[in-house]
Amino acid sequence: MRAWTIKEPGSREQLIIENREKPQPKEGEILIEVKAAGINRTDTLTRQNSSLSKPYPILGIEVSGVVVENHSSDKRLSPGTSVTGLVNQGGYAEYVTMPADRAIIFHESLSMEEAVAIPEVFLTAYQTLYWLGELQKEQKVLIHAGGSGVGTAAIQLARHLSQAQIFTTAGHKKKLEVARELGADTVINYKEEAFEEVIDSVTSGEGVDVILDFIGASYWKKNMQSAGLDANWILIGTLGGTVVENVSLMELLQKRIALKGTLLTPRSDEYKAKLTQEFVEHAMPLIEAGTIRPIIHSVLPFEEAIEAHRQMEDNENIGKIILKIKE
Amino acid sequence: MRAWTIKEPGSREQLIIENREKPQPKEGEILIEVKAAGINRTDTLTRQNSSLSKPYPILGIEVSGVVVENHSSDKRLSPGTSVTGLVNQGGYAEYVTMPADRAIIFHESLSMEEAVAIPEVFLTAYQTLYWLGELQKEQKVLIHAGGSGVGTAAIQLARHLSQAQIFTTAGHKKKLEVARELGADTVINYKEEAFEEVIDSVTSGEGVDVILDFIGASYWKKNMQSAGLDANWILIGTLGGTVVENVSLMELLQKRIALKGTLLTPRSDEYKAKLTQEFVEHAMPLIEAGTIRPIIHSVLPFEEAIEAHRQMEDNENIGKIILKIKE
Repeated sequence: MRAWTIKEPGSREQLIIENREKPQPKEGEILIEVKAAGINRTDTLTRQNSSLSKPYPILGIEVSGVVVENHSSDKRLSPGTSVTGLVNQGGYAEYVTMPADRAIIFHESLSMEEAVAIPEVFLTAYQTLYWLGELQKEQKVLIHAGGSGVGTAAIQLARHLSQAQIFTTAGHKKKLEVARELGADTVINYKEEAFEEVIDSVTSGEGVDVILDFIGASYWKKNMQSAGLDANWILIGTLGGTVVENVSLMELLQKRIALKGTLLTPRSDEYKAKLTQEFVEHAMPLIEAGTIRPIIHSVLPFEEAIEAHRQMEDNENIGKIILKIKE
Repeated sequence: MRAWTIKEPGSREQLIIENREKPQPKEGEILIEVKAAGINRTDTLTRQNSSLSKPYPILGIEVSGVVVENHSSDKRLSPGTSVTGLVNQGGYAEYVTMPADRAIIFHESLSMEEAVAIPEVFLTAYQTLYWLGELQKEQKVLIHAGGSGVGTAAIQLARHLSQAQIFTTAGHKKKLEVARELGADTVINYKEEAFEEVIDSVTSGEGVDVILDFIGASYWKKNMQSAGLDANWILIGTLGGTVVENVSLMELLQKRIALKGTLLTPRSDEYKAKLTQEFVEHAMPLIEAGTIRPIIHSVLPFEEAIEAHRQMEDNENIGKIILKIKE
């Protein structure tokens, strides 16, 4: 089968299509004929990971497609069933195996491209908002990178599952428009306004209950200022740098802030399965009804993985970048 | 009634005994004839708080004594009942009011001095180990300041409620001996050994699941190094400074650490009541049976609050410093 891997760890020009063996599903797994694969930032990090050794992995951690073999006890996953979900690797390929308890079965109301736009961003958004952020109904939440994949997913979940008061930041007018349309109450162009001042003013100094932070170091002081009493501040990326020069623990203590670092991809199979099941129960009905929608930036043919990585690395996208594997 | 307050915010020499009105219990409260009051670090901070205005408060946030009036619906709190628990202020006095749902009724197996050594340190230890630290059975926990009030309480709870693997640090041989006797598995004299190296070696690089951190800045890097995957790192004091320079967020992210700042005293009445009730259910039977014991450093007469503050500020104590209010 055809699959995307790398010549050597490095830039996106290292990406290469190879012929690889079709994977063999183990007990408890399904074999999927892949129709579409999602592009994720973690793929670009894997691509550059100099500690990898040969044979280099097939990239890609989320797919949609059709079940061709079911080696699990879950009778719903019979051959021909449309599924999407997270895989540990191997997504940019014609076939991939997936633990059966991580498969999200979806209705015909969703296309393969829409379905593949769900797992990584919505599961991450769900995990950070609810499992770590402990967002309660009608609380206040600050979602940075409001035009990103996880950002657009988080805004919709916070809107429709929690009726939250949503603050979001982005650097482009178009991203802010999308964020507002999806349900953000206060959209802030960080190039024009100091978000911490806007939040301070709108909340009358109370601050927010939950922060989804993809930025890290460069927003540290502003996030600390925006956090309210007992805030859950979830660190999920470090696009703004990893080293904070001066951290005041007194503020963390007095505001009783919980700062939680997280990554979804390296979590255990068991964790991903449990997260998937809870997400399916709470959020999939709203997605299949069209209330919450997967946001797609671009759908590219199989051959264009390099362009797909370029779009991600240039932060061009509003929503997901998708590689179409097969019609 | 006689009560300890301050002349002006400042050093312990500002402490003064005044005559004050006996407090009036409100609906849902009890009036207590105080027998003993616990000395806490928060009292020394209140004493120095320059934002206080006159009339200055009566110091003290924990007492034991006998119920004299019960204005609540809890029939168990009839006059003559022995209780201990947290009060919002006013503990170093002959009488004090307490929300009834925060009162811990205790058996005759405990003296008034032993009983008053329970609330602040054991509730704080319980809150940090379980509500924030989410300590599970047989997990690994690092408890700094193993000879302190909260430290000795946390070691015993972790030992008897969770069969945890306990690492503790202290700077004096005697404190380490007490910590070991109470149930710590690995005791580390931080003046002689690098605790992060001991933990790394004993856990084969795995690190600990929970850290109780009273120290803050000066231990930052060592705690980060000692934290295992998915660790809960609870910041509860800043004896080692409040400003950390050059914090690496990448480590927080990759280890998926939750760093949680907390203080018990400023929490809501509702929070303290719920914490008290859960603690009474899970831990009081073990205390009344003598399996877990309140650790007392010194019992001083009512007139010696200044000496009591000196002992605390000089870090002389292993366990609680107690002011005896009345025979």
